[in-house]
Amino acid sequence: MTAPTPTVVRPRLAARSARLRGSDIREILQVVEDPRILSLAGGLPAPASLPVERIGIAVDRALARTGPNGAPALQYGPTEGVGDLRDLVAPGTPGSPALGDAGRVLVTTGSQQGIDLVVRALVDEGAPVIVEDPLYLGTRQVLEAAGAHLVPVPVDEHGLDPDRIAALLDAGLRPALLVCVPNWSNPSGASLPPERREALATLAVRHGFTIVEDDPYHGLGFAGPPPAPVRDHAPDHVVTLASASKMLAPGLRIGFVGAPAWLAPTLALVKQSVDLHSPTLNQLVACDLLADHAFLRGHLDAVVHANAARATALRDALAGVVDAPAPDGGMFLWGRAAVDTRAALAGAVAAGVAYVPGDAFTVARDGSHSLRLGFATLEPDRLRVAAARLRTAFTVTGDGRPPLL
Amino acid sequence: MTAPTPTVVRPRLAARSARLRGSDIREILQVVEDPRILSLAGGLPAPASLPVERIGIAVDRALARTGPNGAPALQYGPTEGVGDLRDLVAPGTPGSPALGDAGRVLVTTGSQQGIDLVVRALVDEGAPVIVEDPLYLGTRQVLEAAGAHLVPVPVDEHGLDPDRIAALLDAGLRPALLVCVPNWSNPSGASLPPERREALATLAVRHGFTIVEDDPYHGLGFAGPPPAPVRDHAPDHVVTLASASKMLAPGLRIGFVGAPAWLAPTLALVKQSVDLHSPTLNQLVACDLLADHAFLRGHLDAVVHANAARATALRDALAGVVDAPAPDGGMFLWGRAAVDTRAALAGAVAAGVAYVPGDAFTVARDGSHSLRLGFATLEPDRLRVAAARLRTAFTVTGDGRPPLL
Repeated sequence: MTAPTPTVVRPRLAARSARLRGSDIREILQVVEDPRILSLAGGLPAPASLPVERIGIAVDRALARTGPNGAPALQYGPTEGVGDLRDLVAPGTPGSPALGDAGRVLVTTGSQQGIDLVVRALVDEGAPVIVEDPLYLGTRQVLEAAGAHLVPVPVDEHGLDPDRIAALLDAGLRPALLVCVPNWSNPSGASLPPERREALATLAVRHGFTIVEDDPYHGLGFAGPPPAPVRDHAPDHVVTLASASKMLAPGLRIGFVGAPAWLAPTLALVKQSVDLHSPTLNQLVACDLLADHAFLRGHLDAVVHANAARATALRDALAGVVDAPAPDGGMFLWGRAAVDTRAALAGAVAAGVAYVPGDAFTVARDGSHSLRLGFATLEPDRLRVAAARLRTAFTVTGDGRPPLL
Repeated sequence: MTAPTPTVVRPRLAARSARLRGSDIREILQVVEDPRILSLAGGLPAPASLPVERIGIAVDRALARTGPNGAPALQYGPTEGVGDLRDLVAPGTPGSPALGDAGRVLVTTGSQQGIDLVVRALVDEGAPVIVEDPLYLGTRQVLEAAGAHLVPVPVDEHGLDPDRIAALLDAGLRPALLVCVPNWSNPSGASLPPERREALATLAVRHGFTIVEDDPYHGLGFAGPPPAPVRDHAPDHVVTLASASKMLAPGLRIGFVGAPAWLAPTLALVKQSVDLHSPTLNQLVACDLLADHAFLRGHLDAVVHANAARATALRDALAGVVDAPAPDGGMFLWGRAAVDTRAALAGAVAAGVAYVPGDAFTVARDGSHSLRLGFATLEPDRLRVAAARLRTAFTVTGDGRPPLL
């Protein structure tokens, strides 16, 4: 008797695995574990900024709460999220965008889940989705797993250009979705100016498509809060994604979706089938910290102040090696180098520094000489050491290839 | 200028929403919020059993840990889960099944996410999936959202009958998956005897399909641990799902998948696109409690002792109204009543008691006179009050319809 292997009966598994090849984030997280490597590859908040003590207080309070079914922090809860938390984040908080009516807010397991839920609800296999080029890896993975047809639009120093999108629409494109990061995008660092926000919203209304406004870096502007969101110009056509990961702590895995009325119930049903609800304890902790505006303002001020100094330290130390616009927020430098950045990565890691090569993010444009450098995680003196290592690794030989190290 | 509504461009959204109509769990959770209702509808652990103090200790320890990137409890972590936790649960713990090699264990956001990840990886739209009839609501929702073709097999007092499945396979059925709850299934309460486990495994190997062995109630047997799992008989053909929800606390949202080598990497890639990773803090807390076997054994003994007394109290109090087999584990009575249980639900809620009508769970068989009653949440005296209310609500009039209340 033959015993066929299980894979025989699922013809599309191999195809799905291939689609999910974009495992750069995984490699990043693995490199981060090696203490000999100074990693500029991740988007991790500064270790010293994690509000460990404040979260400890919030956990104690959350566990002390009682309800009809015992400690609500440890019990099952509603799919949409804890009511107090939804009420709290709906109008926006320091560092986080307004999400609209509290009844349409969904608490998610990180904002990565937000993009996944929206794509599951709205994007059929083969459906066109307009994306930034270069594109955030997590969004790319979700869209590729869903079998979406990516329609990349090159990002300039002000983000997506509405005129380019209008030209695509006029030529007949009917996107299921447009995904953008309006503030200090990952990896480009670009932000949409007010007039582009309004123009994108106008296009969405005119052509009847939905915009995902993915805004995890909302509170990380060096010179204060960003302009009014795209959502203000077309609330029925925009889904807002927000995150507690950069404001509080990524390990809590708490994010938020603010959806139009026609979409919110569907997202909640998808969310229920995906993981029932996000952890109750974590929601109560986030609620405690996000309600404490005095803490939040002080915390964000400190984070932003540190980030700005780090961005400057890293950029200055890389002068002549990596050319990057000076960021005014967010967590990343998006730079250009003389070397092929993917080819040079092994040498850089051997020299003790890690980054993400540009072609991990680019869709149609050439990313071979680009790279993303996270400046938020390491202290300035470590950033300077990392830059020195990168300088060594990127010192090109006569034929333009990186040297052996 | 016309402004088309956003829904114009997504023809399948309506169909997907309809598929996700199974919002019974949501209604349950809403009823549970009303303190006037004694709810037998949920699967909530007893409030007094939630280990609030022990979890408080574990949180303090988790937050006190330091790593190269700050407190690991609050930072990003690996997609597959915290290494210590994977190592700990791989061989099994008191109350939780063995999962195989630690390198193939994935930590999930509750075991609901486990079933979703497996279905995303293995079930194409229209693919046949063999399921228990009656079927756990959460599994039903995932499969319906994926567009799977449900092939229901009636459950008897010993769970799925391998002979019935063999007949389907011999007739040409080629399932993408078979999903079963081997121990004290939800809602039937049935457990697979050893010979049926072996027979199911043999069928999976012979016909080349995969079994999902969903085992959240593993530690809840009134007379001790269950027989060896299906997985022992065909480790390459079985995916094991386990959960910390019933053993520790549902609000942590921590579950586990133990997958064969050919499937584990794909599940990790899907997981990454879905939510990057499950909350690090919650993983460290689960790790602390699951490593403490003295605590775990005492905790589970107390839970099981209380559950057994509650099952007896509820069943006895319903004699003559609801006919249900005496359970020997788990959290549910699966009973039969003289009334149409969906028609009688409104009257029962008006009388101050809630349950889930049988037809929420049944796929092809008649569930109109069945109902699921959770016995774990309420104390025995409250269960007796609930039973008295149910007795009132189910007192049928001459024409077999429930009385107006």
